Amino acid sequence: MKLVGIRTGRRVDVAVQIGDAVTVIAEVGHFYADLERWLAVARQATAGEVPVAEVELAPPVPASARVICIGLNYRAHAAEGGFVPPEHPTVFGRWVASLTVGETAAPVPANEPGLDWEGEVAAVVGRRLTDVDAETAAGAVLGYAAFNDLTARTAQKLTTQWTLGKNGDRSGPMGPLVTADEVGDLADGLRVRTRVNGQTVQDGNTRDMIFGIGELLSRISRTFTLNPGDVIATGTPEGVGYVRTPPWLLRPGDVVEVEIDRLGVLRTPIVSSEARP
Amino acid sequence: MKLVGIRTGRRVDVAVQIGDAVTVIAEVGHFYADLERWLAVARQATAGEVPVAEVELAPPVPASARVICIGLNYRAHAAEGGFVPPEHPTVFGRWVASLTVGETAAPVPANEPGLDWEGEVAAVVGRRLTDVDAETAAGAVLGYAAFNDLTARTAQKLTTQWTLGKNGDRSGPMGPLVTADEVGDLADGLRVRTRVNGQTVQDGNTRDMIFGIGELLSRISRTFTLNPGDVIATGTPEGVGYVRTPPWLLRPGDVVEVEIDRLGVLRTPIVSSEARP
Repeated sequence: MKLVGIRTGRRVDVAVQIGDAVTVIAEVGHFYADLERWLAVARQATAGEVPVAEVELAPPVPASARVICIGLNYRAHAAEGGFVPPEHPTVFGRWVASLTVGETAAPVPANEPGLDWEGEVAAVVGRRLTDVDAETAAGAVLGYAAFNDLTARTAQKLTTQWTLGKNGDRSGPMGPLVTADEVGDLADGLRVRTRVNGQTVQDGNTRDMIFGIGELLSRISRTFTLNPGDVIATGTPEGVGYVRTPPWLLRPGDVVEVEIDRLGVLRTPIVSSEARP
Repeated sequence: MKLVGIRTGRRVDVAVQIGDAVTVIAEVGHFYADLERWLAVARQATAGEVPVAEVELAPPVPASARVICIGLNYRAHAAEGGFVPPEHPTVFGRWVASLTVGETAAPVPANEPGLDWEGEVAAVVGRRLTDVDAETAAGAVLGYAAFNDLTARTAQKLTTQWTLGKNGDRSGPMGPLVTADEVGDLADGLRVRTRVNGQTVQDGNTRDMIFGIGELLSRISRTFTLNPGDVIATGTPEGVGYVRTPPWLLRPGDVVEVEIDRLGVLRTPIVSSEARP
């Protein structure tokens, strides 16, 4: 089942997408507050009611969601940035305010030479998780989406903390949410490819993740309670732009695509800072 | 004017507090979407309608707010942790999910020896800010609140990124929001004191902040657009617990209070991990 968000003014509804049409299920806050009920309703839908081209899409997560990002979760990516593979997951945060969807233009801030790409798999949590083991956590994933953790490297590297550079306006495009039953186990391998203007720049596989999704969620749940709707971006494989010689960053006019097995293609045009909100 | 949030189920309203009573102004999302209108309504209130003791208080910020935290913003605090005073503000993030109010118990995660205190001033943004200068940003502050950036030091120090240890359940108590007209300029000096079981452990003053509120918001606005309702915690002065010999952390049964001139006292009992949600 494929779930999307539909924005109407300040309201977001969760809808099920069937083919090229969508059927609204519930307001996003209600949806995650009673997930089993609304998933059962969504499973009853046999056809979409409104063409997807006629709605304004949004990430299907509540405003209250955490967007938990994992750094350095592929050995080859850690190495290309000069890091040793970590003993503990590196956790940094985005706010939902930075999220957007495919086809929405991402602006380069005026004080950055460009944006860097980081194609990766995001998971959405389906149950409240406090102090749980990895198996329980893995079983609590609602679904997965393609994600691009577009990064303002200058801001990211100003201090030890990466947060500023990871929250640019519209810098977190997220694809439709495909429920876990249709995705299977990330450890079995989903190919993650990123293309810039059609040229492949990342070609990794989720089987190479250092910490699996259950392990990530389990460890985080020891410190804070995960809520339904929370997002976890599981880290990017090797091939980012800033470590290349010379560095390669996304400039206005470029188009970046993240393609992930079973999750589809997430396409983002890059524009200048004049397009900032 | 003093603004508080009132929680009713999943809904939060903003209310004005007059003496020991409150009058509801608007649902928090509507409040920040049309701030000038609702502030004018709030200014008309001459008495509270409901005793504050009869409502469930909540931080008066929307679920969509960013909670932007600044590290190392007082020279003496940077020094006590072994850091040099930074050239750029150190920005890390909390999610609204970690926020709470005074008198709400904060649990120590089972894998932590305790929680550390960080008393500080939080500001709430009152206007959308994109690429603005420091003066414009300073003039866009809606108000200020006492804040305790309660920290799970073990989780904070597992990796280079502090986010995990800064988002424990109910670890971000925030006091009522006092509008900027009643607070004045932080550079003129608000005394910030933290007490543990009655003993003073921090006694700083906002005049010693390295980056003022306008400078902080201006610099952040170069990377992402600040929205009405976004929170910025301006950093803690010296005197935190983990750097002491021996380290001193908050344990279940302790009570920590942050008292700030014009912003009041924010009191937090500490409890065990069994009280986690």
